[in-house]
Amino acid sequence: MYSVDQFQKLVEKEIAKRSDELLKHSPAELYEPIHYSLEMGGKRLRPVLVLLACNLFSDDVEQALPAAVAIEVFHNFTLLHDDIMDKAAVRRNRAAVHLKFSENSAILSGDAMAFQSYKYLVETRSPRLIDAISLFTQTAIEVCEGQQFDMDFETRLEVSAEEYLKMIRLKTAVLLAASLKTGALLGNADEEASNDLYEFGIQLGLAFQLQDDLLDTFGDQDTFGKKIGGDILSNKKTYLLIKALENASQEQKTALLQWLGKTEFDPNQKILAITGIYKEIGVKELVEKLVDSYFGQAMNILDKLKVGDDRKKPLRELATKMLTRKK
Amino acid sequence: MYSVDQFQKLVEKEIAKRSDELLKHSPAELYEPIHYSLEMGGKRLRPVLVLLACNLFSDDVEQALPAAVAIEVFHNFTLLHDDIMDKAAVRRNRAAVHLKFSENSAILSGDAMAFQSYKYLVETRSPRLIDAISLFTQTAIEVCEGQQFDMDFETRLEVSAEEYLKMIRLKTAVLLAASLKTGALLGNADEEASNDLYEFGIQLGLAFQLQDDLLDTFGDQDTFGKKIGGDILSNKKTYLLIKALENASQEQKTALLQWLGKTEFDPNQKILAITGIYKEIGVKELVEKLVDSYFGQAMNILDKLKVGDDRKKPLRELATKMLTRKK
Repeated sequence: MYSVDQFQKLVEKEIAKRSDELLKHSPAELYEPIHYSLEMGGKRLRPVLVLLACNLFSDDVEQALPAAVAIEVFHNFTLLHDDIMDKAAVRRNRAAVHLKFSENSAILSGDAMAFQSYKYLVETRSPRLIDAISLFTQTAIEVCEGQQFDMDFETRLEVSAEEYLKMIRLKTAVLLAASLKTGALLGNADEEASNDLYEFGIQLGLAFQLQDDLLDTFGDQDTFGKKIGGDILSNKKTYLLIKALENASQEQKTALLQWLGKTEFDPNQKILAITGIYKEIGVKELVEKLVDSYFGQAMNILDKLKVGDDRKKPLRELATKMLTRKK
Repeated sequence: MYSVDQFQKLVEKEIAKRSDELLKHSPAELYEPIHYSLEMGGKRLRPVLVLLACNLFSDDVEQALPAAVAIEVFHNFTLLHDDIMDKAAVRRNRAAVHLKFSENSAILSGDAMAFQSYKYLVETRSPRLIDAISLFTQTAIEVCEGQQFDMDFETRLEVSAEEYLKMIRLKTAVLLAASLKTGALLGNADEEASNDLYEFGIQLGLAFQLQDDLLDTFGDQDTFGKKIGGDILSNKKTYLLIKALENASQEQKTALLQWLGKTEFDPNQKILAITGIYKEIGVKELVEKLVDSYFGQAMNILDKLKVGDDRKKPLRELATKMLTRKK
């Protein structure tokens, strides 16, 4: 059995190999941005989850490597296109593809990555391949739906907590869930176990995204990696803001809406003021409770899974690491 | 057996049904542009080719309908993204999706269409499904490569005839070829026949695209549908221009390059002048000969195919119709 670290190294090596191989194809203008995107690094969370899930049921995890890479390439494709749509300049401390190359490059190389991910997936030798392709396809459609909801929320005045949770489920959780279920399918798990792992991934994904929202406001600059307060400055309708508006007194609500409506302001002042109101309302504790609840549900599912406990250890370790609060 | 017209109606009805069904999904902002794109019409050439090819080997063509729709949805996805990249305002006499909705809509709804096409394809009940998915995926990657070459040629000074033919092979011919081979696979044709149909599609596709280049300069405004001379005005490095430069006298070459270098000119004068030089050089006849040669090779392949001649009739009819000169 492998440790999380070993899986990470295995995945990293496989991605580097395949990414270098793509550079031999032409036209270079299409493949260089793909190589750039895949070499940017990142946590490789999704492919590692594929292997971890496969390893719950099978000792042959190498057969799941093409599918693991497929999901990472798909994930990177979404980043290329999202960064154009969100006008994001930086990704993992480097220039986003649409700025490093061009917007057309980010569109077309992104498209090629989406299809390349199917090419890797189809390499998989497994009697469950059609199931894996169907799952991958349904997930990809849902991720697009999630991104559209996310963009729609930007221009909408009111977003309910329920709508927000649906959005992050589609945009973030389903791909983590699909990574786990893909691993289970390729490990030849039965239907019940595969579905349990999917549900484990949904709960873990929701906890993970809400945790990310928390860190964006309450995190530590150095360990979080991004600038603290970004969501507040862009008026992003996160779960924190939605819950704050829901639970605010009339006075707090007026203050919040005033800050949201300002077109000119000192950034640090806005962050300080809104964080202050959040603290008064107790939004942080409220969201932390929800994170704990989702994480607890995920762990319950994993506990009940009919697999030897030693086999579950690396997955439990990674899940816990994903949710460790960097505050 | 069906006629080409009957196939066209069958395809049109199936696309309308599925397109309407998509409108029931949310978010509407994602699915409305897809519906708009699929309702724009067009010749539905590719899905009809799927059914025609399937019908060569099987009487059950309805089983190939999901795959036929898949390829049309994929084709429309490429139009959404190409129109952003090429800054094209009009598609089939209506506003292009990125202008009717927004650029972000065209990116994201296009992405969803790409995945939706896999969803339709995977519906296919066939022992050859994995082969069909692999072919579809390889083709999609090649179409991206073709579009990248096409964009690269815009900024390059010299493009060889060989490079141009490779580009239109990737951008246009492989998808026609894959449509035919998909139909053959689903009709359970043997490997040789499936590959012959692919090659038939390549030759037909090359003839079709070169014919389109010819019509853009020498066609009849009313029957061509687009404005004549568009390629000349945009200095597009078509086969006509490449061959003209290759075969021009020193004097003709100087005149051509002068027109290509002008930043201010009367459009009609430029079209008239360059068309005049093409006529002197005999480019039209030269390209017509090449079109005839590719078309002849396609027909040879179809003739040799070990299938009853009555079964080949509708495919021969459509291929001939595709190449009928509207001049």
